[in-house]
Amino acid sequence: MYKIQHEKLAQAISILNENDVWITFVRETAHNSDPVLELILGFGVTWHSALIISGSGRKIAIVGRYEVESVRRMGGYDEVIGYDASIQPTLRAAIDELRPAQVLVNYSESDSAADGLSHGMCLTLARYLEGYPLASAESVISALRGRKSPSEISRIRAAVDLTAQVIDSVTGLLRPGLSEVDIARHIHAEFDRHGVTPAWEPAHCPAVNCGPESPLGHTGPSADYIIQPGQLVHIDLGVKLDDYVSDIQRVWYLQPAGEQDVPRAIQDAFRAVHGAIQAAADVLRPGVQGWQVDQAAREHLVSTGYPEYQHATGHHIGRTVHDGATALGPRWERYGQTPFGIVEAGNVFTLELGVSVPGYGAVSLEEDVLVTDSGIEWLMEPQTEPIVVPV
Amino acid sequence: MYKIQHEKLAQAISILNENDVWITFVRETAHNSDPVLELILGFGVTWHSALIISGSGRKIAIVGRYEVESVRRMGGYDEVIGYDASIQPTLRAAIDELRPAQVLVNYSESDSAADGLSHGMCLTLARYLEGYPLASAESVISALRGRKSPSEISRIRAAVDLTAQVIDSVTGLLRPGLSEVDIARHIHAEFDRHGVTPAWEPAHCPAVNCGPESPLGHTGPSADYIIQPGQLVHIDLGVKLDDYVSDIQRVWYLQPAGEQDVPRAIQDAFRAVHGAIQAAADVLRPGVQGWQVDQAAREHLVSTGYPEYQHATGHHIGRTVHDGATALGPRWERYGQTPFGIVEAGNVFTLELGVSVPGYGAVSLEEDVLVTDSGIEWLMEPQTEPIVVPV
Repeated sequence: MYKIQHEKLAQAISILNENDVWITFVRETAHNSDPVLELILGFGVTWHSALIISGSGRKIAIVGRYEVESVRRMGGYDEVIGYDASIQPTLRAAIDELRPAQVLVNYSESDSAADGLSHGMCLTLARYLEGYPLASAESVISALRGRKSPSEISRIRAAVDLTAQVIDSVTGLLRPGLSEVDIARHIHAEFDRHGVTPAWEPAHCPAVNCGPESPLGHTGPSADYIIQPGQLVHIDLGVKLDDYVSDIQRVWYLQPAGEQDVPRAIQDAFRAVHGAIQAAADVLRPGVQGWQVDQAAREHLVSTGYPEYQHATGHHIGRTVHDGATALGPRWERYGQTPFGIVEAGNVFTLELGVSVPGYGAVSLEEDVLVTDSGIEWLMEPQTEPIVVPV
Repeated sequence: MYKIQHEKLAQAISILNENDVWITFVRETAHNSDPVLELILGFGVTWHSALIISGSGRKIAIVGRYEVESVRRMGGYDEVIGYDASIQPTLRAAIDELRPAQVLVNYSESDSAADGLSHGMCLTLARYLEGYPLASAESVISALRGRKSPSEISRIRAAVDLTAQVIDSVTGLLRPGLSEVDIARHIHAEFDRHGVTPAWEPAHCPAVNCGPESPLGHTGPSADYIIQPGQLVHIDLGVKLDDYVSDIQRVWYLQPAGEQDVPRAIQDAFRAVHGAIQAAADVLRPGVQGWQVDQAAREHLVSTGYPEYQHATGHHIGRTVHDGATALGPRWERYGQTPFGIVEAGNVFTLELGVSVPGYGAVSLEEDVLVTDSGIEWLMEPQTEPIVVPV
């Protein structure tokens, strides 16, 4: 237990500069949690609590008396200090001993995963630590969340592997006459059978598109779109297994009896879409900026004559499907600073894009990849042609 | 669907003053939600979103384009406005039209349920609404959360009724030789069978104490404490059913064969503890302050010669087991302003306290009560004597 939190605490110390002091300050996390807490503690707290990590390697937890034992058992903090009446004197003394020039706290206008400090708690902390300027810990949190530890990577692998099993089960299910809703129900039943939950809102996970009329995007599966022979089925799905997610898109082709080859238009679309994903994968490595990866995929797709997609090519996955700051996206205003983030080893990204094939449906693919020291590893074999279901 | 949210939106307008404008400002609620959101929307959002409620009765939602349809279908907002690039111009225009002297937002140093605005989002909002002072909405949120609507009350009733069934099943189970862990397992299985979850962390819900040696407080059930004939079993449990909780404590006595009456020490403890709860119930009505209710129970218990308990006599329950600001607690520094809150009709409180009975175990009782216009209604028949299990 708490293996991931121990790994993340060690990482945090390596990310912080020698003189940095970082405080995660929370209370009543059943009401207001902080997304950092699951990385550095692993459970909630009730009274005002401060988790203090210094670049010099000290890890101090100050928590209400009744929670001291849980934090001690968690084992990640060298000092666990309890209090009864007020956290203020203990917290102030701990910071006075560390004497930082400033204190890093969890707020960020641009990254919600680094914005767990509530405004009321920020006011309280500023009073308690009067004289110490508070600064944003966003760069620390972005690195901490983005660089997956060994245990985090194995959990994501397990989620991806389970997703591959669900995809296989869908191949066995598909036949003309089933609706998008029927397919989504089967997938939810498979999730239940495996004891996992959808990686995002169940109403949209899976997203299912049968044929060329079904709208892509943030809409749920519909009973109005029915599998037809000679058409495509597109599914976007992911599972959450042991707190970590997958996020995959796959495409099936319902091949009519007697047809020899998959229609040329579908083959062309696969070549373009997988080609663009491969182009992104070819440049994805530590040190590149997010937009450079996006540009490689985007330019490849456009060069094949298909229309440009209107979203980023990829995002982090981890505890959530949009798991942190760096986007593999274009330098458009709506993406803010996120395309300028630097890719690091241990990041896990999606690579995703698609095109419409008139008369057939959507060829939209999404792969999950781990950034290694020199490039990437595909976490699932990438899809290069439709899964053919003879009918 | 969304019946509760419609009721709470109507309530919010009645709580606000004519000229008040209240904004709930959130994004990526999968990372950082706001506890108010479940009351006034009922689901999460992704892009920057503003839920604006004015005392004059206007309800405006400004959300990202892809979420407009979900908010329209929810049906609580008169105007649902979508945006693509930035929420700023639309939000600014809406507030400029309302022209409030100040804007109420969700921060509070003292009440975590009213502190859902993150510090980063507060900085963004202050920039967007430059010229309008931001003030705390804590009194609005405290009233909104505390005054349970008819649908909320029926859900709490259902949770309490189900808890009574689980308590009955425990009576059928208890026998010498079972450990605290065995009892907790049975209760978790009952929760699963009824499709409900524990009202607080599963490791401590239920809390189970067998006999006089088992420590009361925030510790989990232990395999080391075993039911013995002639001893007490104390359980603190609650369920979450349809998002609303119960929170109840009950006490059993394992009566040895041949014993005629429950031992006098246990009878005395019940008389004192239930008497103190009854004393609190006698003064609990709209208009009293929390500390007055606490004082009635506390003085009654101490007058019977038992030692004073070191916690508040009661707290709100609702969507969470500590559901808002007003505490039925003593005017001790650690409770801050919460004992000074005014009790209102529609509040649902616990009344809870206990004593140790040397040689037998804990007599600690907890009742759930609804504040009516003139007093209280017990949501479960209060316990006045131990549940006797002959062994």
